[in-house]
Amino acid sequence: MQTGNLFTGFSTPRKGETFETLLSRRNLVIERIVSSAELSPQKYQQVQDEWVALLKGTAILEVDGKTIELNTGDYLFLPANTPHTVKWTSHGALWLAVHVY
Amino acid sequence: MQTGNLFTGFSTPRKGETFETLLSRRNLVIERIVSSAELSPQKYQQVQDEWVALLKGTAILEVDGKTIELNTGDYLFLPANTPHTVKWTSHGALWLAVHVY
Repeated sequence: MQTGNLFTGFSTPRKGETFETLLSRRNLVIERIVSSAELSPQKYQQVQDEWVALLKGTAILEVDGKTIELNTGDYLFLPANTPHTVKWTSHGALWLAVHVY
Repeated sequence: MQTGNLFTGFSTPRKGETFETLLSRRNLVIERIVSSAELSPQKYQQVQDEWVALLKGTAILEVDGKTIELNTGDYLFLPANTPHTVKWTSHGALWLAVHVY
């Protein structure tokens, strides 16, 4: 059985983000992401659908040209090919990302 | 954009569980489940893979004959056809379930 805890067992990187795969099964990948406040905003435009939830913290995203603020618990669906940028996050922002290929 | 908040906008049922679909896309369904302490344990054995995270609360499951306690943040992967029963949960236990068909 693949078990673990979302809220424990990680440390916040000093810079950038860390990615950890919690599950990879068929066309599904579930990741935990921890962001530091020192991010270099990077534009993503993925071939896969992504559903993302901010489990803890605050984040500012730009999605398809629109600025969006996310707070603890907020989730968002990003269909494949939606351009999105993480502009800023609080230090230790914790994400759950579900990718469907 | 399909957005929402995991931790708000629901009430705990007096009995049983409530299920809410947050996303249904291709072979993926993401659900939020809220459990009351008054559950009639029901055995599940699904044709689909399920990844489940307890976002808040405590739960006792029986998975493939083995008793498992879950606490806030614990997640678990249940491959298709794994028999599992929710034996007990704290009142207002909050789950995120990802089903892959």
